[in-house]
Amino acid sequence: MKFIIKKEILMENLNNVSKAISSKNLIPILSGIKFELNKKGLFLSASDTDISIECFIDKENIVNIYSEGSIVIGGKYIVELVRKLPSTDITIEVIDGYKMLITTENSSFNLNGINPNEFPNLYLEETKEPITLNTNLFKEIINQTSFTASSSETRPILTGINFKINNNVLEVIATDSYRLAKKKIDVDVNVDNINVVIPCRNLLELSKIITDDNINLEIHLFTNKVLFKYKNILFQSRLLSGTYPASSNIIPLDFKISVECELTKLFGMIDRASLLTSDKDKNTIKLILENKILTIFSNSPEIGKVEEKMNVDNDNFIDISFSSKYMLEALRSFKSDKILINMIDNNSPIILKEVDNDSLIQLILPIKTY
Amino acid sequence: MKFIIKKEILMENLNNVSKAISSKNLIPILSGIKFELNKKGLFLSASDTDISIECFIDKENIVNIYSEGSIVIGGKYIVELVRKLPSTDITIEVIDGYKMLITTENSSFNLNGINPNEFPNLYLEETKEPITLNTNLFKEIINQTSFTASSSETRPILTGINFKINNNVLEVIATDSYRLAKKKIDVDVNVDNINVVIPCRNLLELSKIITDDNINLEIHLFTNKVLFKYKNILFQSRLLSGTYPASSNIIPLDFKISVECELTKLFGMIDRASLLTSDKDKNTIKLILENKILTIFSNSPEIGKVEEKMNVDNDNFIDISFSSKYMLEALRSFKSDKILINMIDNNSPIILKEVDNDSLIQLILPIKTY
Repeated sequence: MKFIIKKEILMENLNNVSKAISSKNLIPILSGIKFELNKKGLFLSASDTDISIECFIDKENIVNIYSEGSIVIGGKYIVELVRKLPSTDITIEVIDGYKMLITTENSSFNLNGINPNEFPNLYLEETKEPITLNTNLFKEIINQTSFTASSSETRPILTGINFKINNNVLEVIATDSYRLAKKKIDVDVNVDNINVVIPCRNLLELSKIITDDNINLEIHLFTNKVLFKYKNILFQSRLLSGTYPASSNIIPLDFKISVECELTKLFGMIDRASLLTSDKDKNTIKLILENKILTIFSNSPEIGKVEEKMNVDNDNFIDISFSSKYMLEALRSFKSDKILINMIDNNSPIILKEVDNDSLIQLILPIKTY
Repeated sequence: MKFIIKKEILMENLNNVSKAISSKNLIPILSGIKFELNKKGLFLSASDTDISIECFIDKENIVNIYSEGSIVIGGKYIVELVRKLPSTDITIEVIDGYKMLITTENSSFNLNGINPNEFPNLYLEETKEPITLNTNLFKEIINQTSFTASSSETRPILTGINFKINNNVLEVIATDSYRLAKKKIDVDVNVDNINVVIPCRNLLELSKIITDDNINLEIHLFTNKVLFKYKNILFQSRLLSGTYPASSNIIPLDFKISVECELTKLFGMIDRASLLTSDKDKNTIKLILENKILTIFSNSPEIGKVEEKMNVDNDNFIDISFSSKYMLEALRSFKSDKILINMIDNNSPIILKEVDNDSLIQLILPIKTY
């Protein structure tokens, strides 16, 4: 294997493929990136068994190909090294069996590699009928739901995000059982009865790779895995097995109290009140609605107390406590500045949504205080 | 005590005074900020016993003063709280003995405070004949020397920076005994025979507070402490006691080999070579000068090796090893892109300086390799 490539092209693709390298990996071959050069171009691939990524660099984007071949090279070093090279042509060559020689005009790097035959087959297959989503929409979905997925492995299924498609409606749900995000949008797809759970961590990695706006992302679904195709990149993730909890029975439909308010203002009030809470009591704050005044209240006996007031057009009464951290994260997911806080009583879920848009709802369970 | 003040003015001064609050402080009163309001204005002060800071807000910059008084309030909370307030007028009042009531139009904070009589006297005295330095020059001195001060308490004197003034020449030295930075500049001052050691950490905190370019910084020296006066801020630091090691006998004056080279290029070469070194062997790299070629070389048996070459106008021979980390930090301190690497042999210090400027020298001891 010997070829010449521009630094920027190699760098961009190494960056993308390196998302599948886990620093915790104990299997040496999986901390490497496989280089495979043939007549079509250069294939870079990596896998941590959870995520597998392949980036293809077409021969048109390679300065010169002298000879085909392949090698696996330690991912961490090659990425850092290419990043630190000046913007120039780089010659890459396999020498002495499994060594990679990287040269520029004045630099020469000799990296120890591994026999490429030891690298696992990644089976990056495509289906005949992929679902296509706009990249903007995909990133928005991930931004608005991923933070509510669980980070604890106690119930592994909750570390994923649930994607369902029925009758051209895509429903995306994430929950850690204390709060829930649900996004619903009309899509025009040729599949139905889809119900899969994709690890949230993997979707966040994919989201980082997707930088181009408004282009198509192809989703190829299999029974135990999913392949995303974005530009010259194949990104495969395993699916989580198990049944995702049904959300229909925990999201209330009728509310006694529906308060409209300005998001930025409410965010500031809760942000300040959260200063005088402690992690120990889950950053609990209190919302009191009385005489058309919404008050956010928090109290830490040693430090002091905060009271924040806002006039609202609602003369109901409620006194409800919840996690300020969860509420701030939920508020951050909305794009409009007018939101509705829907409540029933101090034991029932709080539902947030935009005033004229039901596409996204954020649910937060109240905290019982005494 | 009761007054009204604009958020921005209070915030800026709280930020500055809070630099003297250590999170590690076990004495509760020293984790607080003292507010003292009198006819002249508001004095904010804090101290961790190592650094003491007082910021004065003139009454001209206070919207309204209703009544004088004082209180000590937990520094961490008041700073965060004021930062999160919208840009508005803030009313601050002492109520119920030692409680601070902070109110804006819709917010009300009630913070527990401490009796101000418990706050120590900071003795922020001024001398009659301060030394004045330009703030730009002061920040430059700190940037160019502080990184070579020791971070280990094994020899406490080396955690400081040595300032000497003799015959209108200011000499600033910092060393951790493996490397040394020395800055020498002509100053026009009315003092002589000055030789003090100021804790480096404190100078870095002061450097953060100094944001205005090209104004005067007054330095008031005492036998065991130093007071810096910058705008409305008094910043006092203790001095380190003990004798700072004399540098004259470790900085060589004559060199057999003096190589001129382009700093940016050399930096890139060493930066890349440092990738294949390990912390265990002090990030050691090798510099070889031979046949007018300067080669930077590093080798990590498990990972691989790097060779970086640059043509230089010097036909001497040397093969010397040193810490790439120290060399990169030293190179970063120069402003000109043309530097001289002065060497004697592979056991003697390496001296870096700019080509036509002796004001700053950086010394690095070589590492013996076998």
